[in-house]
Amino acid sequence: MNKASLILLSIFFSFTALAQKEDSLQIKTIYNIALEEGHAYKNLRSLCKDVGARLSGSPEAEKAVSWAKNLLESYQFDKVWLMPVKVPHWIRGDIEQAGVNGTAMSIKTLGGSVSSNGRIEANVIEIQNFEELATLGEAKVKGKIVFYNRAFDRKLISTGNAYGACVNQRWSGASKASVYGAVGVFVRSLSHLKDKHAHTGSMGYEEGIQKIPSVALSVQDADMLSELLKTQPNAMAYLNVNSQTLADKDSYNVIAEIKGSIEPDKIITFGGHLDSWDVGEGAHDDGAGVVHSIEALRILKAIAYQPRYTLRCVLFMNEENGNNGGKTYAAVAKEKGEVHIAALESDAGGFVPRGFTMDGTEEQVKQMQSWEPLLEPYNLHIFKKGWGGVDIKPLKSQNVPLIGLRPDDQRYFDHHHSDTDVFENVHQRELELGAASFASMIFLIDKYGLGTPPQLKMEKE
Amino acid sequence: MNKASLILLSIFFSFTALAQKEDSLQIKTIYNIALEEGHAYKNLRSLCKDVGARLSGSPEAEKAVSWAKNLLESYQFDKVWLMPVKVPHWIRGDIEQAGVNGTAMSIKTLGGSVSSNGRIEANVIEIQNFEELATLGEAKVKGKIVFYNRAFDRKLISTGNAYGACVNQRWSGASKASVYGAVGVFVRSLSHLKDKHAHTGSMGYEEGIQKIPSVALSVQDADMLSELLKTQPNAMAYLNVNSQTLADKDSYNVIAEIKGSIEPDKIITFGGHLDSWDVGEGAHDDGAGVVHSIEALRILKAIAYQPRYTLRCVLFMNEENGNNGGKTYAAVAKEKGEVHIAALESDAGGFVPRGFTMDGTEEQVKQMQSWEPLLEPYNLHIFKKGWGGVDIKPLKSQNVPLIGLRPDDQRYFDHHHSDTDVFENVHQRELELGAASFASMIFLIDKYGLGTPPQLKMEKE
Repeated sequence: MNKASLILLSIFFSFTALAQKEDSLQIKTIYNIALEEGHAYKNLRSLCKDVGARLSGSPEAEKAVSWAKNLLESYQFDKVWLMPVKVPHWIRGDIEQAGVNGTAMSIKTLGGSVSSNGRIEANVIEIQNFEELATLGEAKVKGKIVFYNRAFDRKLISTGNAYGACVNQRWSGASKASVYGAVGVFVRSLSHLKDKHAHTGSMGYEEGIQKIPSVALSVQDADMLSELLKTQPNAMAYLNVNSQTLADKDSYNVIAEIKGSIEPDKIITFGGHLDSWDVGEGAHDDGAGVVHSIEALRILKAIAYQPRYTLRCVLFMNEENGNNGGKTYAAVAKEKGEVHIAALESDAGGFVPRGFTMDGTEEQVKQMQSWEPLLEPYNLHIFKKGWGGVDIKPLKSQNVPLIGLRPDDQRYFDHHHSDTDVFENVHQRELELGAASFASMIFLIDKYGLGTPPQLKMEKE
Repeated sequence: MNKASLILLSIFFSFTALAQKEDSLQIKTIYNIALEEGHAYKNLRSLCKDVGARLSGSPEAEKAVSWAKNLLESYQFDKVWLMPVKVPHWIRGDIEQAGVNGTAMSIKTLGGSVSSNGRIEANVIEIQNFEELATLGEAKVKGKIVFYNRAFDRKLISTGNAYGACVNQRWSGASKASVYGAVGVFVRSLSHLKDKHAHTGSMGYEEGIQKIPSVALSVQDADMLSELLKTQPNAMAYLNVNSQTLADKDSYNVIAEIKGSIEPDKIITFGGHLDSWDVGEGAHDDGAGVVHSIEALRILKAIAYQPRYTLRCVLFMNEENGNNGGKTYAAVAKEKGEVHIAALESDAGGFVPRGFTMDGTEEQVKQMQSWEPLLEPYNLHIFKKGWGGVDIKPLKSQNVPLIGLRPDDQRYFDHHHSDTDVFENVHQRELELGAASFASMIFLIDKYGLGTPPQLKMEKE
């Protein structure tokens, strides 16, 4: 290497060190505002207490749209608008009863389930998985309530992986059992926590198969029922739910943006979902993601950051039972020929943040990993390939790198889709740290992009 | 490099890869047992509910000693014994009252505080730090209650650092104020959480200075009082506490060990402290550390691990107000000429583990860091120089490397030394992950030591 190159190199490294110092200070400022003058916690309180649970199609979901629009407008971003989204409209009935041998169990009808059309009485057959169901066949299943009781695997460190290994019972259990003549389905709640709260969630029916009602049992009741069946295999259970699916309704994604100062036609989208299940208050799922996203945009405006690209906060409607908000957003983006630099989602709760996973190319993941030293002081340590988010997933076909905020997940499924997903179960500082982490990642992507790192480009030139 | 060296090197690396695989499997087994067949959570329930709060010198502390000895004996370790420790005996009185303008405030007498000898009525002067106190001097302080109201700095990511920046108010506030003629002290509770629970903790008096009573106010009451003083600087406060210090008592460290199979005279000590404050149930502080330590020894025995060194679980008495257990342990070790390979402590709560900090040499820290790839699958990411623990600190002068388990600390000071430090505020899986992390670190230290890494020794030879 000659002397000129050496000088250039040393200038380059001085520049890099200076840039890192600047970035550090910017990120520190973001965290300071989130922790000292944050709005995330009070905004979440308002969403949980003034709006509450907000399932797609419900009056509360409509209220949530107004709530979000008003809040975003109050922050005077460059633009706030509603994007129309057609959503399904399922409603839990006022009857929700199940039990065994006359003893009531704590249940939640699964979202999408049909009514039982009155009280069903039947024997129960407990199974662990679909293979077992197929082996038992019509001879053992016909006329019975099938009880899916596969529990979370405690050995899995990630509770998300434990959930992933059980969720097919909830989603597909009814149709799989109906094929063999079952009359209803009990599903063990998808949670580690052995309490009295049943956890709802989406289920679907396969075409052309008789639709039977499907409900979640609380983990305590699932254990009780399983114990009881060991000694009383012919115990009589009952099930009575009157949920129904009405006509689709009109709803909206709520969107706000700050225009890019250099390349306004390129967009960084980040968001959470505004809808929730119709139980609890949708505090962690996904009130946290909603307020993380709003707070990220608010903080970046508060520090007068001039983004290179357009920063767009999207509060998606209908993640829980259809993902029509996410699908509509991607379709509109495609139709308009919008270019997305990246899409980020916070939909894993308001717990203490651990880092980010990215559904993107190796190069993009490496670029994200290069920022670890800047974020390590905030205890962020996960920077790897992985899941982005349900709402942003439809952008994948447009080659947009998808990034998911990863809060600690040990407590997430304790509350997920249950009566306990309320504001009181969210910790203020953990929520605020999540918002700051989200804002910092958006800042870094805006500053450095996610293509070939600018540093490497300089070296090549 | 010649061919023979290359072959040797490749054998060395194959050996290393094989050893890593073995270590991975061993660690996986440790975590599986902790999460699937763990005793930590049920042991903590028993300590909290059957024994409860257990301040040194109290009947409950005595009960805790029996509880621990019985439990350790039930696991049939090689040896269980009690090590005598003389402890102070301070007791909170049955009178604990304070208020302002006739309105009661939620308080806790600080541990070690003298009685107020009846009801004190006085004006209050609010200050932030000792510098301000000195500036005000006797003219403004004499005859008043000094109110230390320096709050946790929300900007600090580590709540431990926020605590560290405020704790001198609690520890030294009384004597500092007494110098200028103050008649009593109110200290803002050391917590981020704005609730009604005051947080107690240790305080001390300087020799030769008039002892005045000192109490913690709940954060809510501290904020209320501060607001009130803005408009009513002459508001009348009252304080009435009848705590007292009795004669020292006899108590014990409770110890169990598994003998080393190769070098039994060298010891790895790990523990938590058995005593707690006399409020709540000492669940996080330090019931968690107690059950982490017991569980670590139990699991290593359960997997029939043959330790190289002697593994010793020490449940220290009197960390909270004297550290006589830790001091005695180190003194006995010195007297007996015991060699300690390392000392580990869990005294930072039962929250989800983040990693370990070490008070040791650069080389020792590097050795610990070399194990990060083995522990990263369990979301451990902190491996750096730092704090060991109060109980093990006296071993420092014997050149023992000290290692502290680092659980996430965002929630720790919400409960620390308050009525809410109860079993219900500990999360089962987080506690179990802590126990497994602790056991895994003990396993790695036992297998590889903390001196020059065996790998490097091989290379040198």
